[in-house]
Amino acid sequence: MSQLPTPSGYLACGWNAGIKDDSLDFGCIHSSRPASAAAVFTRNHFPGNPVIVGREHIQSGKLQTIVVNSKNSNVATGPAGLELARNMCRWTGESLNVSPDLVLPSSTGVIGRMPPVDRLEKACSELPERLQEPDFRKFSEAIMTTDAFPKARGYSLSSGATVLGVAKGAGMIEPNMATMLSYIVTDAAMESEDLNRLLRFCVNRSYNRISVDSDTSTSDTVVLLANGASGRPPFRFPASIEALLGNHTLETILGDPLPAPGETPDRVERANPWPDHISEEELEFVRAVLRISLYLSREIVRDGEGASRFFEVMIVGAASAEMAYNVGRSLINSPLVKTAIHGADPNWGRFLMAIGKVFDEPINPGRIKIYAGEQLLFQGRGDLESPDLELLKRHFQEKEIRIKVDLDSGTCFDRFWASDLTADYVRLNADYTT
Amino acid sequence: MSQLPTPSGYLACGWNAGIKDDSLDFGCIHSSRPASAAAVFTRNHFPGNPVIVGREHIQSGKLQTIVVNSKNSNVATGPAGLELARNMCRWTGESLNVSPDLVLPSSTGVIGRMPPVDRLEKACSELPERLQEPDFRKFSEAIMTTDAFPKARGYSLSSGATVLGVAKGAGMIEPNMATMLSYIVTDAAMESEDLNRLLRFCVNRSYNRISVDSDTSTSDTVVLLANGASGRPPFRFPASIEALLGNHTLETILGDPLPAPGETPDRVERANPWPDHISEEELEFVRAVLRISLYLSREIVRDGEGASRFFEVMIVGAASAEMAYNVGRSLINSPLVKTAIHGADPNWGRFLMAIGKVFDEPINPGRIKIYAGEQLLFQGRGDLESPDLELLKRHFQEKEIRIKVDLDSGTCFDRFWASDLTADYVRLNADYTT
Repeated sequence: MSQLPTPSGYLACGWNAGIKDDSLDFGCIHSSRPASAAAVFTRNHFPGNPVIVGREHIQSGKLQTIVVNSKNSNVATGPAGLELARNMCRWTGESLNVSPDLVLPSSTGVIGRMPPVDRLEKACSELPERLQEPDFRKFSEAIMTTDAFPKARGYSLSSGATVLGVAKGAGMIEPNMATMLSYIVTDAAMESEDLNRLLRFCVNRSYNRISVDSDTSTSDTVVLLANGASGRPPFRFPASIEALLGNHTLETILGDPLPAPGETPDRVERANPWPDHISEEELEFVRAVLRISLYLSREIVRDGEGASRFFEVMIVGAASAEMAYNVGRSLINSPLVKTAIHGADPNWGRFLMAIGKVFDEPINPGRIKIYAGEQLLFQGRGDLESPDLELLKRHFQEKEIRIKVDLDSGTCFDRFWASDLTADYVRLNADYTT
Repeated sequence: MSQLPTPSGYLACGWNAGIKDDSLDFGCIHSSRPASAAAVFTRNHFPGNPVIVGREHIQSGKLQTIVVNSKNSNVATGPAGLELARNMCRWTGESLNVSPDLVLPSSTGVIGRMPPVDRLEKACSELPERLQEPDFRKFSEAIMTTDAFPKARGYSLSSGATVLGVAKGAGMIEPNMATMLSYIVTDAAMESEDLNRLLRFCVNRSYNRISVDSDTSTSDTVVLLANGASGRPPFRFPASIEALLGNHTLETILGDPLPAPGETPDRVERANPWPDHISEEELEFVRAVLRISLYLSREIVRDGEGASRFFEVMIVGAASAEMAYNVGRSLINSPLVKTAIHGADPNWGRFLMAIGKVFDEPINPGRIKIYAGEQLLFQGRGDLESPDLELLKRHFQEKEIRIKVDLDSGTCFDRFWASDLTADYVRLNADYTT
């Protein structure tokens, strides 16, 4: 955390505003100029009030300031809560001399309780004196709820641009619900349409491919800001590139393995997928945003409620992207798979069950293969000789477990990361009462 | 269990055939004549070999004998396992002088291991001497795997007919997967088409509305046999009656509350839904099969892996049956709802989250109401004053917790039962290894 590269033209801060106790609970990221902006929010039917306001403000494709409180969300708080979310933008706008429409608010913590309005108003009024430097470290700590550690990563690019992302989240946890919040800021320039496309591409490969407990928060938010302060001409991310990358694995897109390497599916060519009309600098930028998204979302899984193990699920050979997605989700959300992972039990019958219960996909049981690491666990209708259980048990005791399912029905694939299900998860979510 | 009423013309037995240890592990139900038969099997893409054979044999609408072994399933055992399932029918048919096509086999227990073929062949050959009386008690014990208690219930009807059901299951449990098996037998007569309709109607109101852990076994089986030995003319269950009952709650269908009473939704009339052309005796019979289905499926939940609490979820006011079903399933399968129930925590934010994450249904957040027992927990966007938390906590400490969600979007409803998620569930499924 000490060597976070800082993009130009941003200030950031975090402090204790007395929301709940004496921990850091209020933070702000502020750009010196309006920035191109894209955001992705929770799909839950009961979005928090800050999400309702954020959806309105992102319509313009511009944001300048992000203001966040932790330790108390603003969800299910009625009309007064919606007014508070709007007021947080107004108060922030007044104190920083920014249009309220350029402010995106977030709140995270216990839900169904009205946050302390006076303290939030006071905190917003203090922003000019608090925002003295780009202290993203303090900001990343101020947005934490039950996180065990802050999450941030940045890259200084050869183009002179810098990208930095921070996140909070540890599953849908807390005595009440917690939330996943992530903010990625850069001093590169990018039109908001391209930025939006890039964010969705990255979110679908990262934040949308993780599971701690299969539940979906009412406040999930990922925001990407590009203020152009590096002075470089705008980078592009056209739809043609997005479509092209859709056929490639993370390894081929990133040009190198993930930090904890997974397998590359056999059917996907390893050739460089980047066409000539994308510059090296644009390529480097897109890769940086994707790397940050992958890093932060995987850190959220690693910090998952009660988690003791981390596992990757790779689906290959699917007839459609939907089939790959549905089979992968079933595996990472199955309680029996998650407890088997927890128990370091190479119990392949449970993987089979979790694949087989995806009723709506035309899965062919006779063609399926399941691997753990490099080892074949199951093939077709069980024609395989019993796998080497000792070898399997060793793999299941590693910190990162890799499951690969080959559906042998097509060329689509997908990739997921998840934490195990532990008695600690149950204790943390059952034994505290409101 | 000691006063189980026994339908005429059936024998049943259970003994230790040495499948795994010295517990009861082999059982048989045998009708003195071919019986009308209906069956519902798992939807998992990887059905066990007995399910594959059972699906073939039920096509004729006739069965005479059910043969079951526990302590070792016959799933993912390749061509040899399929041959074994067929051989169990052949051996049983030879020893009891029954066509193999009239035998339905079941196996439950650890998966991926070939059961001991010689012991199963020997057990089948012993059936004539073992089948001396209608010992359904021994049968219900012989089909248990990790069940804490056997499950059986029967009714002697005023028509002179008798209905008896037995079941095993305690979630998708065991070091490997377990299974839900249920057999309901009657000496009433019913054409197989009506029987099939009646079984599906009852399963959809009971076995298909329970959740221990959201996972789906590869061997789930419910069978209904009617051998007509009571000598009564056939009962009917025409499609017109089924359609009519679809609009009524369990209370109006059964004519009285469930043993542990739930609420009746306000919008549904309480009038007797039964038309004149259904006789009192037919009505009594249908009610008995439904009562047995409800009793046995709820017993499976009560015996759920590590379960400490039992909760009911009632959905009313849904725009469609699908909406009611999807919202209910989301609630009973949500880990955060299940841990809140476990912790006796009236954490209504989690109920809200689980309803809101049913993305594909047009839920109107502003109209929703959530009740716990009689008490309103949440209304619309949170306009309600904070509920009485002390009253709620008391309700959440009861053995059966009742959650009602009013979606205020239509007149459809549904009803579910589930167990909580406990640290014991995790321990039982993680700490035993294969």
